[in-house]
Amino acid sequence: MQKSDLLEKLQQIVGKEMVTTSAAELYCYSCDASQVRGMPDIVVRPVSTEQVSRIVRLAYDNGIPVTPRGAGTGLAGGSVPIEGGIVVDMSSMNRLLEMDLDNLQVVVEPGIVQEKLNEALEPYGFFFPPDPGSSAMCTLGGLIANNGSGMRSVKYGTTRNYVLGLEVVLADGTVINTGSKTTKSVAGYSLTDLFVGSEGTLGVITGAVLKVRALPKERSVLLASFENPELAGKAVVKVLSSGMIPSACEILDRNIIEAINTYDPNIGLPRAGAILLFEVDGTENTVREGIEMIKEACSSLASSIRAASDKKERDEIWAARRLVGAAVSRLDPLRTRVYVGEDIGVPIKELPGMLHKVSEISKEFSMPIMTYGHIGDGNLHTGMCIDVLDEKEWDKLNMAADKIHRTAIEVGGTVTAEHGVGSARAEYMGLELGKGLDVMILIKKALDPKGILNPGKMGV
Amino acid sequence: MQKSDLLEKLQQIVGKEMVTTSAAELYCYSCDASQVRGMPDIVVRPVSTEQVSRIVRLAYDNGIPVTPRGAGTGLAGGSVPIEGGIVVDMSSMNRLLEMDLDNLQVVVEPGIVQEKLNEALEPYGFFFPPDPGSSAMCTLGGLIANNGSGMRSVKYGTTRNYVLGLEVVLADGTVINTGSKTTKSVAGYSLTDLFVGSEGTLGVITGAVLKVRALPKERSVLLASFENPELAGKAVVKVLSSGMIPSACEILDRNIIEAINTYDPNIGLPRAGAILLFEVDGTENTVREGIEMIKEACSSLASSIRAASDKKERDEIWAARRLVGAAVSRLDPLRTRVYVGEDIGVPIKELPGMLHKVSEISKEFSMPIMTYGHIGDGNLHTGMCIDVLDEKEWDKLNMAADKIHRTAIEVGGTVTAEHGVGSARAEYMGLELGKGLDVMILIKKALDPKGILNPGKMGV
Repeated sequence: MQKSDLLEKLQQIVGKEMVTTSAAELYCYSCDASQVRGMPDIVVRPVSTEQVSRIVRLAYDNGIPVTPRGAGTGLAGGSVPIEGGIVVDMSSMNRLLEMDLDNLQVVVEPGIVQEKLNEALEPYGFFFPPDPGSSAMCTLGGLIANNGSGMRSVKYGTTRNYVLGLEVVLADGTVINTGSKTTKSVAGYSLTDLFVGSEGTLGVITGAVLKVRALPKERSVLLASFENPELAGKAVVKVLSSGMIPSACEILDRNIIEAINTYDPNIGLPRAGAILLFEVDGTENTVREGIEMIKEACSSLASSIRAASDKKERDEIWAARRLVGAAVSRLDPLRTRVYVGEDIGVPIKELPGMLHKVSEISKEFSMPIMTYGHIGDGNLHTGMCIDVLDEKEWDKLNMAADKIHRTAIEVGGTVTAEHGVGSARAEYMGLELGKGLDVMILIKKALDPKGILNPGKMGV
Repeated sequence: MQKSDLLEKLQQIVGKEMVTTSAAELYCYSCDASQVRGMPDIVVRPVSTEQVSRIVRLAYDNGIPVTPRGAGTGLAGGSVPIEGGIVVDMSSMNRLLEMDLDNLQVVVEPGIVQEKLNEALEPYGFFFPPDPGSSAMCTLGGLIANNGSGMRSVKYGTTRNYVLGLEVVLADGTVINTGSKTTKSVAGYSLTDLFVGSEGTLGVITGAVLKVRALPKERSVLLASFENPELAGKAVVKVLSSGMIPSACEILDRNIIEAINTYDPNIGLPRAGAILLFEVDGTENTVREGIEMIKEACSSLASSIRAASDKKERDEIWAARRLVGAAVSRLDPLRTRVYVGEDIGVPIKELPGMLHKVSEISKEFSMPIMTYGHIGDGNLHTGMCIDVLDEKEWDKLNMAADKIHRTAIEVGGTVTAEHGVGSARAEYMGLELGKGLDVMILIKKALDPKGILNPGKMGV
């Protein structure tokens, strides 16, 4: 199909204003927050499910790639149209359709920014728990397509745990609804769970029924420092085994501690082999009790423990965690943080060993690695910064990342705990999933026989 | 293939002792706890994944139906071989392979009885939360294949929430592993979630990595009675919105209250339109606080509230809940409880209306219905007992059940919240899932092109 014909047909579906082929605009859609790049032929901004259905049907009839996109905050190229074709920008479908709080749920369009949903819920005393670092920008559709999570998943789980049902446009334009408005149902295969985390390769998410929760009344924090990461890892196991589940459980390694102290000396983190930051939420009593339980669990392992005595101290302690991104990215103005090999997950008890291996990999490739992450989930973010204009630096980075990925898989872990596969990590799917990848490919072929939906992603 | 050839080939795989074609034994495998019946041609009891793989491959090559079976405690015919063929009895694969408590997980074979796992975990202070009524008998494989849950899912979720990874034998005998030993991974489609709840129609589960949790230190209970179910429903919404999540939240309707009081007058439940039973677990303080929060939330709605002051009173109150099954089944010695239309789920706020409709359906068909269930999840068990030798009673029952199912779907609910689809509810899948059923069928065809795996189930 000629591009001019495609333009005209898409204009008929969504109106002239909502389609673009302008080079400047297309450029904006050629990237996400990763290093992956790919230029779309055309971008379309539907405002209804019916429009999405007609767009996808048109693409299906003509074998044109369709890449759905939310806010483009992904870190693996998931929304980058690496095979060209149509980018479907879902951000105009951003209505909060129903605040069904008596059922502890909301019905949303996919284009709503995560934080906006929480702003709407807050006056009613509710919240939507998943909290990726990009919550101020990312859309719910992107969050669902990637099964995003963040710091609080150790207590609250991932996005998957909050999706009761989806409206999805399939490859041929058919619209289906999965799940239901009931909390619990075993009627049929869990198609909801299949689409959550499928990164737009099986269908375009056009709506969702999401569970929400009552906002906790209180929260407090505790900082524990350890001589080495092994001791920190042991402390995490001890805390989680106590039955107390913190609302966040973060680790900072020696390098990141130094980076934060360099970036802002006022923070004055203890010089330690590793620091754990815990947050506890709930009622006043449960928070007090939780902090005491963590203190006790860490007491024989930590070299120092500091629990917040009031809100001010709480914010001071948590400031360190908030600075992590800045400390990694801005340590050296000539180097840019590159999101490669940055999202491994390992079984909790493998964490100390994995942290040790990361530091060995850092030495082997002379590549400074600053590690932090959601240790309660076994999720480590290995932050690497390079001079992006230096090809040799890229080589070193890719080799280090490759070794990090392979090591994570070797210890029973994953190459991506929350950032997604996209095209950046597609090559590791065979290694990590084995014959499971064949099953993914069978499903992909069954649901998208022409392969038009977000081609080149996830190894399918 | 001749039955004698099949017998011989299966004997070669598992040994003579582990295959049977004896009529008496086959009869035992022709039913589960539902009214569904179907005779297998042969029963085989493998002890290893390799044996399962060879059995399924043999069946695949010869187009013979394969029905996996755990303890046969299902309530929808899921493990009944309605098209004959081979029943694969998984109960001999019952080893607890790994107690990996530092990772808060265990690795199991599918034949372990649910309660046995908890008995093994208890000395270490851990437990596996899903708790179906059949926990003393059901196997973990069956629980996973059905995504079973029970009373505590309001706080702890369903089996799905505890399955980190599976080992599955596919239709052609291929063995795959899904998920991983990490708590959090977004590498690939969530095949684990696809197989959980697929009732043996996509593969045979031969192993699982399961999350476990620390045992709560304390638990207590509260009984609140209400003039009508509407008020009880409102109280549930108020409790859940408070942020306090009870570990059980059960409703008994007027009929079931009468049935329990008739069955055991010592119980002496208050004569009420509905009773809510709450259980709270956690630390001593959180339990005390939780009970207070429930009291407060219910205070303006309940006609009476009784909180347990000690363990003895706790057990007295909970005795009523434990008697539900007996009270329903044994009220009239001439009538047998039949599991038809007994497992609907509706959005929480639809519960009062649904309870009202159930009592109207009861009148319409002159069919006494005793309703109880996991109201915190919107899950209602509508208990009906009939003279199973009277065909007219069956007709009435089936018509009442049909209306219950259709009403649940009309209010956005499900025909099965936890008991499964099997063959008993297969006919409702189109009505409930719409075009989603077509997607299920596409997946079924892709993974099991010859349709040998548990044929006749789930509408696929």
